[in-house]
Amino acid sequence: MTHYIDQLKRLSTALYNKDFLITWEHSDDEIRAVTLVAECLKEMHRAGLSYRTFDTGLAISIFRDNSTRTRFSFASAANALGLGLADLDEVKSQIAHGETVRETANMISFLAEVIGIRDDMYIGEGNRYMREVSAAVQEGFAQGVLHQRPAVINLQCDIDHPTQTLADLLHLKTRFGSLDALRGKKIAMTWAYSPSYGKPLSVPQGIIGLMTRFGMQVSLAYPEGYGLLPDVVDHARAAAGTKGGSFTITHSMEDAFAGADVVYPKSWAPFHVMEQRTALLRKSDRQGLADLERQCLAENARHADWVCDETKMRLTAGGNALYMHCLPADISGVSCAQGEVSADVFERYRIPTYKQAGFKPFVISALIFLTRMQHPVEALASLISRNTRRNA
Amino acid sequence: MTHYIDQLKRLSTALYNKDFLITWEHSDDEIRAVTLVAECLKEMHRAGLSYRTFDTGLAISIFRDNSTRTRFSFASAANALGLGLADLDEVKSQIAHGETVRETANMISFLAEVIGIRDDMYIGEGNRYMREVSAAVQEGFAQGVLHQRPAVINLQCDIDHPTQTLADLLHLKTRFGSLDALRGKKIAMTWAYSPSYGKPLSVPQGIIGLMTRFGMQVSLAYPEGYGLLPDVVDHARAAAGTKGGSFTITHSMEDAFAGADVVYPKSWAPFHVMEQRTALLRKSDRQGLADLERQCLAENARHADWVCDETKMRLTAGGNALYMHCLPADISGVSCAQGEVSADVFERYRIPTYKQAGFKPFVISALIFLTRMQHPVEALASLISRNTRRNA
Amino acid sequence: MTHYIDQLKRLSTALYNKDFLITWEHSDDEIRAVTLVAECLKEMHRAGLSYRTFDTGLAISIFRDNSTRTRFSFASAANALGLGLADLDEVKSQIAHGETVRETANMISFLAEVIGIRDDMYIGEGNRYMREVSAAVQEGFAQGVLHQRPAVINLQCDIDHPTQTLADLLHLKTRFGSLDALRGKKIAMTWAYSPSYGKPLSVPQGIIGLMTRFGMQVSLAYPEGYGLLPDVVDHARAAAGTKGGSFTITHSMEDAFAGADVVYPKSWAPFHVMEQRTALLRKSDRQGLADLERQCLAENARHADWVCDETKMRLTAGGNALYMHCLPADISGVSCAQGEVSADVFERYRIPTYKQAGFKPFVISALIFLTRMQHPVEALASLISRNTRRNA
Repeated sequence: MTHYIDQLKRLSTALYNKDFLITWEHSDDEIRAVTLVAECLKEMHRAGLSYRTFDTGLAISIFRDNSTRTRFSFASAANALGLGLADLDEVKSQIAHGETVRETANMISFLAEVIGIRDDMYIGEGNRYMREVSAAVQEGFAQGVLHQRPAVINLQCDIDHPTQTLADLLHLKTRFGSLDALRGKKIAMTWAYSPSYGKPLSVPQGIIGLMTRFGMQVSLAYPEGYGLLPDVVDHARAAAGTKGGSFTITHSMEDAFAGADVVYPKSWAPFHVMEQRTALLRKSDRQGLADLERQCLAENARHADWVCDETKMRLTAGGNALYMHCLPADISGVSCAQGEVSADVFERYRIPTYKQAGFKPFVISALIFLTRMQHPVEALASLISRNTRRNA
Repeated sequence: MTHYIDQLKRLSTALYNKDFLITWEHSDDEIRAVTLVAECLKEMHRAGLSYRTFDTGLAISIFRDNSTRTRFSFASAANALGLGLADLDEVKSQIAHGETVRETANMISFLAEVIGIRDDMYIGEGNRYMREVSAAVQEGFAQGVLHQRPAVINLQCDIDHPTQTLADLLHLKTRFGSLDALRGKKIAMTWAYSPSYGKPLSVPQGIIGLMTRFGMQVSLAYPEGYGLLPDVVDHARAAAGTKGGSFTITHSMEDAFAGADVVYPKSWAPFHVMEQRTALLRKSDRQGLADLERQCLAENARHADWVCDETKMRLTAGGNALYMHCLPADISGVSCAQGEVSADVFERYRIPTYKQAGFKPFVISALIFLTRMQHPVEALASLISRNTRRNA
Repeated sequence: MTHYIDQLKRLSTALYNKDFLITWEHSDDEIRAVTLVAECLKEMHRAGLSYRTFDTGLAISIFRDNSTRTRFSFASAANALGLGLADLDEVKSQIAHGETVRETANMISFLAEVIGIRDDMYIGEGNRYMREVSAAVQEGFAQGVLHQRPAVINLQCDIDHPTQTLADLLHLKTRFGSLDALRGKKIAMTWAYSPSYGKPLSVPQGIIGLMTRFGMQVSLAYPEGYGLLPDVVDHARAAAGTKGGSFTITHSMEDAFAGADVVYPKSWAPFHVMEQRTALLRKSDRQGLADLERQCLAENARHADWVCDETKMRLTAGGNALYMHCLPADISGVSCAQGEVSADVFERYRIPTYKQAGFKPFVISALIFLTRMQHPVEALASLISRNTRRNA
């Protein structure tokens, strides 16, 4: 595994005592370092080796929306590194007593190394909340309240979902052999029909924000009116321009699939709907929310043909594109009557989607490792040479 | 503690990379191995020694019914082995989004060594669910999704409660000196009156399924109409026939107690009621459930004399049978007005019932150890010789 | 850090295999030992060292009221010592089935080193419950049910809040240089206005019970009718008499602040109101509770001038008293319209109140260490000389 060390040594990173909130706030070298560390830790784990890094310390999770895979990925990553998990359940806390975020963030962090946050329900809120927590622990550390500066890790917000898209990137790297091999490959990030509404924008936004940086031809497809956050679209366009890739928007799923090497069909709610929803949620306007849902489901139903099936898959490069999904997918006839993907396409790619998800615990481990180790390359080399087995 | 190693070496077991769901699916040698490893780990713990086996790794629990002692026994066992605990709270997960069991099982297992499941509410469901999880992680492991194959451990289902009955077996082994000494001893597994209804069948079923294998004379007693799962009764009868024991059914508590060396009086709901209840729960038929409960409580009340009191205890061998209970017991005048056992009998055996329960964390540890260690005898010998103290 | 060892060696303590429930049940030497061990562990942590003491073992928490900082302090302390955390969530347990405290306490404790309990809602209940748990594990240990005797640690009850007040004592020790330097210093423990009602009495009671022992001049101030538990007041008076300090009660916040070196303004509900509330809660009398709340808020509103603002701060010694709060504070214009403290005073002392809270994880660590280590001084010396870093 020493080749990872050799590659890491060539990269310039400055993640120590920082957060990881948005992939496009980090340099290419930092993104590459995350993939290398994640691959190295995954290889150690597969070989039965422990990459325990901490003797003690807490990993704190704050989940403001339901989660299975991200919750378990974070728990797994924390455990593998030797950290104990402590979940801040806001229902059981005194936060309702009017306690400020600034204060709570410090109160939970005295022995914390990392704070993982998922907050994706409200447009304009999730990412802002993470930055508020970050500023608070930064102040606490600077003032000597905290002995160490816990890293804030974005486990999904209204803007980005970096632990997912970095796992996706590793899946692509594994499929195509290297990050450089992604150059020129076409990925279709497309909307797909779902019988539910209100799914977050973070995955499509994260994908167009990250994959454009690796010279991919990113084709974003959605029915008219299902647009993403304008700022993120601007970023994706700019990134594509400087990295030799391309970024296009189409309103035809077929256009996006045509010649694609990778397809990522997934439902989301339009940005403007999420904004309306945020306003209604704030007012606790249940009638308004019910009306919006009905209206959106009716609108969705007009696009029920946006489904990833074998007919559309035949349009892709060699009829053989890599199908990706962050899971759980809405599978026609399996998890719903009619959904994002046909049962035959999904079944063909079921195991690969599990492997895609399987990168996430190691991505999160890598993010914690790189933000908390002052000398990560030396620390990783030392873990490798230590050669401790995971069990007796 | 090396005598455990000597005894283990003589046994032929094949538990590595397997599950533990039903005691009668495992050979006598495997049952004996579980008792020996559990005793050895318990002795190490009592001596202040650590039997930590894993440097890192997760133990996942899925509780579909409330639990105190099994929850803490599983948490204790996981911790003592060095595993971190992660509870899958289905309410906080995305399982409601239509995610399949097959998929969830893999998503939570990337770094998991064991999945403990309690699911005993629905006849025909709990055990089936465990096998679905097992098949999913087996596929994931075979396909390279999972680096290791987590063991599925039954923490109580609709059929068996192996961690309880193996703890019970260890309690009997301790009381009578050896497993061989159980041959010919009479155990009365009898129904007892309770002011509640709907208690699971897994304990009486597990007891008749396990104790018949050790040549015990198993007397199952219940009022007419309170029968157990026919398949399990058939198994118990067959096991008794081949192991020199006996299995009889009586509808008199007194008959069962007569000359018994061990009594295990405990309430349960009749099998056919549990089936009706399952159907009503599936339909969310609240009125039907209320009607069924009223009807069952009225039926129970006709058998309020099925109580374990000093009068009945005098019928047992020497008037001195070992009273057993999986706890919590319905104790007349203590935890309810009138219940399974009189206060004086329970008080006499209170501390022994605590000791009976005290085997459970070590049984669960042993099951994890035997299913996850490729060479368990060598691994155990190495733990013993390592001689690490639990605290500094 | 060896000077801590030298000081500890001179103290006579007998905390091994005991609980820690009320500060005034422990000798001065024991209180001093707690502060020394806590400081030593804190210094180790700040230096990046691990004070992991246990290889395995459980720390059990029972929270009968919401909590953020105590919950995380307990989790942090357990983790730093190497214990795994297991929370007894009474909703998910079988305690509703009529299980006795005596039994549950043993069932959860087979591998437990410590049980931390918060139960402060009912006058006459919380502390009694802790003693019931303590008696149960003591019996279990004596009878051989438990291999070790878990310490019961009071994480806040109806009488005392020792982990808070010992953190407060360390904050004062740090501010004034030593425990001896507290002699003659005046501390104003005063009621303050809050827009809520029903806040527990444990902090003011704990403060007057502890600080009187260090020769401080303790001035307790509250509006007429807001008295504390008479027994605790009696104890404080007696302690002050024998330790060269003083204890006075005044009904003027200004009187208490006059010349004070330390001020601790905090809302609480009068003792007699808490008693009424306990009776109403027991009867689930919702109308009665609503009436009581309305009546109490109206009474509180008559004392809205009991606020800690710059005007009152100018009355203190040099106009520069140390402001203390257990957090979260009701800050006028920040967390409520009008509350316990003005925004300017709080902001001036915000970071110091965070540091005050920052002692708590180390106080809890010290309490666990001293109650669970048979030879704590030797054990601590060995941790120091081991010099293990917290991360690789």
